[in-house]
Amino acid sequence: MDDKFMLMIPGPTPVPERVLLAQAKHLIGHRSGEFSQIMAEVTENLKWLHQTQNDVLLLTASGTGAMEAGIINVLSAGDRVLAGNNGKFGERWVKVCEAFGIQVEAIEAEWGKPLDPEAFRAALEADTAKTIKAVIVTHSETSTGVLNDLQTIARHVKAHGEALMIVDAVTSLGACSVPVDEWGLDVVASGSQKGYMIPPGLGFVAMSDRAWAAYEKSTLPKFYFDLGPYRKNAAKNTTPFTPPVSLFYALQVALQMMKAEGLETIFARHERLKRATRAAMKALNLPLSAADEFASPAVTAVMPQGVDAEKIRSTLRKQFDIAMAGGQDHLKGKIFRMGHLGFVSDRDVLTAIAALEATLAQLGAEGVTPGAGLAAAQAALRA
Amino acid sequence: MDDKFMLMIPGPTPVPERVLLAQAKHLIGHRSGEFSQIMAEVTENLKWLHQTQNDVLLLTASGTGAMEAGIINVLSAGDRVLAGNNGKFGERWVKVCEAFGIQVEAIEAEWGKPLDPEAFRAALEADTAKTIKAVIVTHSETSTGVLNDLQTIARHVKAHGEALMIVDAVTSLGACSVPVDEWGLDVVASGSQKGYMIPPGLGFVAMSDRAWAAYEKSTLPKFYFDLGPYRKNAAKNTTPFTPPVSLFYALQVALQMMKAEGLETIFARHERLKRATRAAMKALNLPLSAADEFASPAVTAVMPQGVDAEKIRSTLRKQFDIAMAGGQDHLKGKIFRMGHLGFVSDRDVLTAIAALEATLAQLGAEGVTPGAGLAAAQAALRA
Repeated sequence: MDDKFMLMIPGPTPVPERVLLAQAKHLIGHRSGEFSQIMAEVTENLKWLHQTQNDVLLLTASGTGAMEAGIINVLSAGDRVLAGNNGKFGERWVKVCEAFGIQVEAIEAEWGKPLDPEAFRAALEADTAKTIKAVIVTHSETSTGVLNDLQTIARHVKAHGEALMIVDAVTSLGACSVPVDEWGLDVVASGSQKGYMIPPGLGFVAMSDRAWAAYEKSTLPKFYFDLGPYRKNAAKNTTPFTPPVSLFYALQVALQMMKAEGLETIFARHERLKRATRAAMKALNLPLSAADEFASPAVTAVMPQGVDAEKIRSTLRKQFDIAMAGGQDHLKGKIFRMGHLGFVSDRDVLTAIAALEATLAQLGAEGVTPGAGLAAAQAALRA
Repeated sequence: MDDKFMLMIPGPTPVPERVLLAQAKHLIGHRSGEFSQIMAEVTENLKWLHQTQNDVLLLTASGTGAMEAGIINVLSAGDRVLAGNNGKFGERWVKVCEAFGIQVEAIEAEWGKPLDPEAFRAALEADTAKTIKAVIVTHSETSTGVLNDLQTIARHVKAHGEALMIVDAVTSLGACSVPVDEWGLDVVASGSQKGYMIPPGLGFVAMSDRAWAAYEKSTLPKFYFDLGPYRKNAAKNTTPFTPPVSLFYALQVALQMMKAEGLETIFARHERLKRATRAAMKALNLPLSAADEFASPAVTAVMPQGVDAEKIRSTLRKQFDIAMAGGQDHLKGKIFRMGHLGFVSDRDVLTAIAALEATLAQLGAEGVTPGAGLAAAQAALRA
């Protein structure tokens, strides 16, 4: 049906009505006092969300742009870095490093498996000459629904003493705790269309004091993504280049909603939705890509057997007006991914599971007991 | 008064109601058929606006990001380029070149004066070894309201035979004719918050076949701004990274409105608003920054004598709820700039002039006859 669409993909995520409408306000000049007030408020609230006292800068860019900015502002060509690669996004940061002549060593795991913190520890401990300048890790790997053990890896990075911890927190920030200062994360990149509950178009980069010290030594060429001027302007509640004003309106409202809900409640909600989703999939005999211990609170990747993943997605879309994501690269056609990130409620998960059950029955999937998924999800929501 | 704000700055420009509301629609996935349909439509209409058969690519970035992308995709470190510099933005492109190790020679003119095409001709003709790889020109210099003679400069670049013509058309595209193919412009950058009548956050880069040939030789490091993947994805009506979906909704509607108005009507409207604005300023004895022959159709910079420019702006803002822009850098406090770009009507110009007259009288400006500016503007609108 027209206008009945329901987004259950890992981004863009659903946007609350008041956030949608905030974007429809007439624009103001970005060099005005009114804009500076918004900038001051969102910057303060971004620090709250990141659990940091340090800078959180706003860029007109996607999450990839924010991550690239984080990398090229603290590194130089020829620098040696370790990069975790267990999915589409981990792979992307390896490519960014290669594009900028950074000497990158990938620490790999199979797609669907978590990165092994021990592999990082071993490589960092072996580096007695302290040549490793940074470690890059994707916290929540959106392509497979794996949550990497960032806290442990960050601890090994800290023990190394020299390397910076650079984090892709695009689908973890706002879904689970990413205590930037407590874990000693130096560069943390994210994007607006995920846990922030606003449309895409804004990127965020948190920078620690150690990251700024590295910035001073970085020789990679940059202008639009040179974070120095962003920091200098942010101190005056302004931006070096024209910011996306309507997305700032949206961000202002979304962060107010997040503050009203509270960090702990937000994280508990995502944990609950993840458990309910996974319980339902198991009850429907649908294999999950990631093991329970490493399951992302943002997205669940499912590998249906005997039924085509793309057929499931197209039935969900056509008959039930629900969008779920497909697989990327070699997982295309093999998995579907259900997002439960951002403005997603208990009701949304029940709705999606109900439609999924109906879809599976319609496609003649074996081992599916109608109602079993919903019963399991309901039990998980009660727990 | 609250919610009575009127934007008369050169960007962000006023946004039509139907464009504002388009942004308030629920999001769709950017890998969906629905999004591809929007992408196909806006890409086609962008070519119409640029008067080109070549690629026009969409980036999540401000105009500065689009311009940087245009420069770094066709050049390499050490390349020799000429860059026009007669204002804040001309100066910015010199800095971008310097940041990327491009050997840039500035061809300068005083702020408020146009670039001299003869200076470009002489430098290009002297380059018999054909070492000049590109010429960079800001078409409409937003900081001073000067429209540079791009057509003539582009002709000299064409006569050189090797150099590419790279253009900042941020405040000219959609205000006056920028016939990309006819003038042989190789790289043309623009931003959404100007003639496009939508909020900031989208950048555009048009690329000619010659630009793509140069792209193949460019060795500057890039990933997020690497235009190759944008072109490849655009051919399939998609984007390499998550696009700002709500701004695509806005762009779709704004381009439909522009097509309905028609290019010639849009350009004639901007020409009329420019003439009316300038006639009014002259009738109020307010000196103009740019001479008539080189006046931008987007913005008029005014240098009031005996009355403080910032006082004029603050009275306009506080009493009449009208925003005009101030001067940048050494022109700060010396000029104010009235935008008449994008979704601006004859009525808007009369309104702004009426408020400006009242403001000048209130501030005790000399040589101001109340009604004189309006009479002159009305006459110009009739002409």
